[in-house]
Amino acid sequence: MPLGRDYPAQDCSLARALEVLGERWTLLVLRDCFFGVRRFSDFQARLDIPKAVLSARLAELTDAGVLRREPYGAGRDEYVLTERGVELWPAVYALLQWGDSHLGSGGARRLFSHTACGNDVDRRGWCAHCGVVPEPDELDMRPGPGLARSKRTDPVSIALKQPHRLLEPVR
Amino acid sequence: MPLGRDYPAQDCSLARALEVLGERWTLLVLRDCFFGVRRFSDFQARLDIPKAVLSARLAELTDAGVLRREPYGAGRDEYVLTERGVELWPAVYALLQWGDSHLGSGGARRLFSHTACGNDVDRRGWCAHCGVVPEPDELDMRPGPGLARSKRTDPVSIALKQPHRLLEPVR
Repeated sequence: MPLGRDYPAQDCSLARALEVLGERWTLLVLRDCFFGVRRFSDFQARLDIPKAVLSARLAELTDAGVLRREPYGAGRDEYVLTERGVELWPAVYALLQWGDSHLGSGGARRLFSHTACGNDVDRRGWCAHCGVVPEPDELDMRPGPGLARSKRTDPVSIALKQPHRLLEPVR
Repeated sequence: MPLGRDYPAQDCSLARALEVLGERWTLLVLRDCFFGVRRFSDFQARLDIPKAVLSARLAELTDAGVLRREPYGAGRDEYVLTERGVELWPAVYALLQWGDSHLGSGGARRLFSHTACGNDVDRRGWCAHCGVVPEPDELDMRPGPGLARSKRTDPVSIALKQPHRLLEPVR
């Protein structure tokens, strides 16, 4: 059944968002951007997808103003979230949390705490201690019990088994 | 390029969530569930998709425990969000808000206020007045300036041009 990518008859902001984000792999690329992945080879190590698919997703996100390219030497670029891209954190976080709560096993894979006070935020991203919803650069991520089952052995995934401030580059 | 539906090598809660929610139209069906749509013919009026596609999406969401069927007479069922389904509100809201902020024109299409205090929640779903993130049944939705451009003339879309408490059935 041919189903296109767009939703022209849907007068809706969600439909517009899905036209940008609804392609396969796109939201997983974005997840890694928030975790601090910026380089093509690092995305590829984490995602195990053909180079052509990864190139296409990064180009679409750049065209949509969600990522921007920044040179880092040797003629290569890093992909960095724009302000518009950073505003996607609530969507990425909400989907992660829902998967963790309802589809995982062995407990949460990653836990997120409010840097300012050290308390964990809830599934809605809310810090009950401070009564606010922190922005992603105000969150620290650490492995939860569910991550122990992870079989990924690429260097980026191993680095991300340590506590990490969101948006800070993984090295 | 054949890209399957699953992400077997992605040890990630977001990948699991997308295996349930990533099919085309699925998140738009869920949007309408939160807006109070429950009946097959009403979903169809809103979504303009083939019956077979709508049936498949509703069956997948029911199998995943996101919706449950409830008889309403004449041998027909309504589709109602389960508790697990209601917990998808932060994801649906985050995508709506992002689309409204960055991809729309003419201003927000829908505005959401905290029933308890009457103040609007922000793009993260946070009520600054109360310092909490209300659940969807604590939110009232009303048309914003961007909805005036909507060309949809089906009865459900017209009913949803009035203020409406989330999750309450549209009649």
